[in-house]
Amino acid sequence: MAYVDLNADLGEDFGAYRLADDGEILAYVTSANLACGMHAGDPVVMARSVALAKARGVAVGAHPGYPDLQGFGRRDMALDEDEIHAFVLYQLGAIAAFARSQGVRLHHVKPHGALYNRAAVDRAAARAICRAVAEFDPSLKVYAPYRSELAAQAEAVGLCACCEVFADRRYEEDGQLTPRRHPDAMIRDLDEACEQVLTMVREGRVRSRTGEWVEVAADTVCLHGDGPHAVALAKALHERLTHAGVQICPA
Amino acid sequence: MAYVDLNADLGEDFGAYRLADDGEILAYVTSANLACGMHAGDPVVMARSVALAKARGVAVGAHPGYPDLQGFGRRDMALDEDEIHAFVLYQLGAIAAFARSQGVRLHHVKPHGALYNRAAVDRAAARAICRAVAEFDPSLKVYAPYRSELAAQAEAVGLCACCEVFADRRYEEDGQLTPRRHPDAMIRDLDEACEQVLTMVREGRVRSRTGEWVEVAADTVCLHGDGPHAVALAKALHERLTHAGVQICPA
Amino acid sequence: MAYVDLNADLGEDFGAYRLADDGEILAYVTSANLACGMHAGDPVVMARSVALAKARGVAVGAHPGYPDLQGFGRRDMALDEDEIHAFVLYQLGAIAAFARSQGVRLHHVKPHGALYNRAAVDRAAARAICRAVAEFDPSLKVYAPYRSELAAQAEAVGLCACCEVFADRRYEEDGQLTPRRHPDAMIRDLDEACEQVLTMVREGRVRSRTGEWVEVAADTVCLHGDGPHAVALAKALHERLTHAGVQICPA
Amino acid sequence: MAYVDLNADLGEDFGAYRLADDGEILAYVTSANLACGMHAGDPVVMARSVALAKARGVAVGAHPGYPDLQGFGRRDMALDEDEIHAFVLYQLGAIAAFARSQGVRLHHVKPHGALYNRAAVDRAAARAICRAVAEFDPSLKVYAPYRSELAAQAEAVGLCACCEVFADRRYEEDGQLTPRRHPDAMIRDLDEACEQVLTMVREGRVRSRTGEWVEVAADTVCLHGDGPHAVALAKALHERLTHAGVQICPA
Repeated sequence: MAYVDLNADLGEDFGAYRLADDGEILAYVTSANLACGMHAGDPVVMARSVALAKARGVAVGAHPGYPDLQGFGRRDMALDEDEIHAFVLYQLGAIAAFARSQGVRLHHVKPHGALYNRAAVDRAAARAICRAVAEFDPSLKVYAPYRSELAAQAEAVGLCACCEVFADRRYEEDGQLTPRRHPDAMIRDLDEACEQVLTMVREGRVRSRTGEWVEVAADTVCLHGDGPHAVALAKALHERLTHAGVQICPA
Repeated sequence: MAYVDLNADLGEDFGAYRLADDGEILAYVTSANLACGMHAGDPVVMARSVALAKARGVAVGAHPGYPDLQGFGRRDMALDEDEIHAFVLYQLGAIAAFARSQGVRLHHVKPHGALYNRAAVDRAAARAICRAVAEFDPSLKVYAPYRSELAAQAEAVGLCACCEVFADRRYEEDGQLTPRRHPDAMIRDLDEACEQVLTMVREGRVRSRTGEWVEVAADTVCLHGDGPHAVALAKALHERLTHAGVQICPA
Repeated sequence: MAYVDLNADLGEDFGAYRLADDGEILAYVTSANLACGMHAGDPVVMARSVALAKARGVAVGAHPGYPDLQGFGRRDMALDEDEIHAFVLYQLGAIAAFARSQGVRLHHVKPHGALYNRAAVDRAAARAICRAVAEFDPSLKVYAPYRSELAAQAEAVGLCACCEVFADRRYEEDGQLTPRRHPDAMIRDLDEACEQVLTMVREGRVRSRTGEWVEVAADTVCLHGDGPHAVALAKALHERLTHAGVQICPA
Repeated sequence: MAYVDLNADLGEDFGAYRLADDGEILAYVTSANLACGMHAGDPVVMARSVALAKARGVAVGAHPGYPDLQGFGRRDMALDEDEIHAFVLYQLGAIAAFARSQGVRLHHVKPHGALYNRAAVDRAAARAICRAVAEFDPSLKVYAPYRSELAAQAEAVGLCACCEVFADRRYEEDGQLTPRRHPDAMIRDLDEACEQVLTMVREGRVRSRTGEWVEVAADTVCLHGDGPHAVALAKALHERLTHAGVQICPA
């Protein structure tokens, strides 16, 4: 039987600032990537987010990012390998403390934003992240793009890598996401987005923007936590997958 | 046989900034309170500090503070109970991750600066800290002033409170430290400082500034990590205690 | 002829975080207090906020706060007088640079949150703020509560203090705001709020929660920048004042 | 008559952290680049540093950097052009406020660390910086490498660019600094360093690491603020230039 995880980045409020209403999307996802206080989130937000995920029975993961709150972790920063290792380890410990205090076990790690993008292609960054994860808790799963450096380094240190795909993003024939600046980068039709995921989950392949079939593994689907469109997509995808007999469960 | 712990605040560098040479004082202490990135310290410093403490066989403790790097955690901040709880839990998790990654177990918690001062007298703050510690790891010891709110709340939640005394500070007849602004607040003579500690450890009392004997418990002595005087005092105290047959070991 | 200024705290976004839609409230106010990057705001937000205020012909003021982004400047921090002076001066310079770069002249200063509350009653804090303002630009007006330390210190160094009142807050018989925890602290009825302001502007007095008439000066009315209620109140107050022949212009 | 400016990066303390003793180097320099609170420095430090420079009669300049205190502004960050513009403008305003409050006029701008390196070669970054400077105060001089994008963009917006050279760094035949990783990157001999500067000032050229003469303009020489070697070089250079009849004055 086919199965897949639906994940979303949550807990990205900070102090008086609300980024999104996490409650709605939590009804549809099976794992939550919680910000750890570097690119977003703060200790009070983290306590609240773990409680929310726990109440919904959603698996709690770490979502470590660059130490750049003003840039929301979306700008690349030239941290070296030891710095990335230390900043990721710090964030893992911090979010795990909130999980532990509420009797929840940390389930996975998904790097955020510019760090995720860099770890997809930069071996040193990927190694730094995976080394931190393996030292902290080798049972943690690493969410990573298919055939990325991050996935490779996770496996190299004995971690379980879960391949992440996107419902509403188009793919190129080399398996990379179509860059956002491309006019056809986004799949705006809900049905089309749902079918793309279903095909990825059941057939292990995706039809690229230019029409070729590309091999892909779909262990977990990334959903966005904000905006009406995001919730509508999450709901539609959840229904479509369930209807097709795909089991939705943490990776 | 009498025994006592010698502790020092370490790992308070930040980025390019060096606060003190931690190496020297580490030769004399048995437990190190490591900054956790809020009032001082950063992930790279924390990794390095845990390694240094481990190499010297010194017990590793958390030294959580207010989120105020510019003020070095020495200014009071009106965090409420839930905020203190969350900020302490965050810091415990962060430093514990570095300990775990190096195969070291976190040993104790000592709040820093203005948070320590507040927790000595403010029940809500003390409770917030101790609740965080108990949730995170109930085997952690809490370093606290004798008969403080912090000690009381630690015991109230089942934690082991270790009473901290000072070698080079004068005490009032109510057992409180003589305020620093008082001209006679500091004990500058090494011998006198050593004798004060020895008396506290062996007799459970200290002679106050005004001459009365005051009851005190001395589980751990706070040493400062910086300055030539600090190292000289640490060395002298270590020798004096050893010579007197007092065993120096983690609290 | 009676006249009054309507002010609002604006430019309090930070990075990816939006606090409020400043555009709506800007249609009704005559002066904007712009966050300066310490409790809220960042350089990109400040550039955008000055441009927005300029486009609407609204006077640009500085809204300096404690360096506490996570607490949104709402928590008291034990900065000493020199620290407050330096932190305010820093923020004045920063926001003034954005004004100057767009050909706008800084018009006033209104401390934010916990700093405003402290400056109302703490002479050292009030003096520190006013000293910074006077050194930076003695033509800047200081928005301050009536008969506050802030108003007194402003006048003591030759600055023009503008008394700020609130439309939707109840007053005590000593002229202080009824604390928010009091069930009757807020005036929720739009008409009542408008009448309170009109009376303050025209008669220089307000009827306290307990029914006494209290003297007050109303140079500027504080409006809130967020929430549907805030915009409705701003709109209603603008109409009521205009209808009553009160001129609405910068203080 | 030949003349040259000697500059140093100063005011890089932060909170409780001391980076260097600025007092010694101030005896030899004619212009100081003061950190503005983003990569180093804080409002209290800035007030103190301006006072120190003023007391020594040293020209006060802004030393804006990336918002990365933990990395000391030495790591590249992918800020876009508008972000760089806003962050530089913010920092110019902040340091200028301290200068103004002490009756000193800001004299120049020198970007710090990774921002300086990027602005040397990246047109958008250089343009963003120079646009901010020109908008803030077109009389400010910009310290920039010879034939850099920063110098070009400064001149393009009508600013005066002052070419900066290094006494203790070797040059390549294309006029670039020999990278630090090269074993021969540093000139460790004081006499050799002094002669390099003297030749650059008087002859407008420097002999490269590989022996060729390279054209260069030497309006200002960068000295380092920390370490015994730095002060010794500053002192030797000051003496050598004075002895050779070169006037040392702000650029």
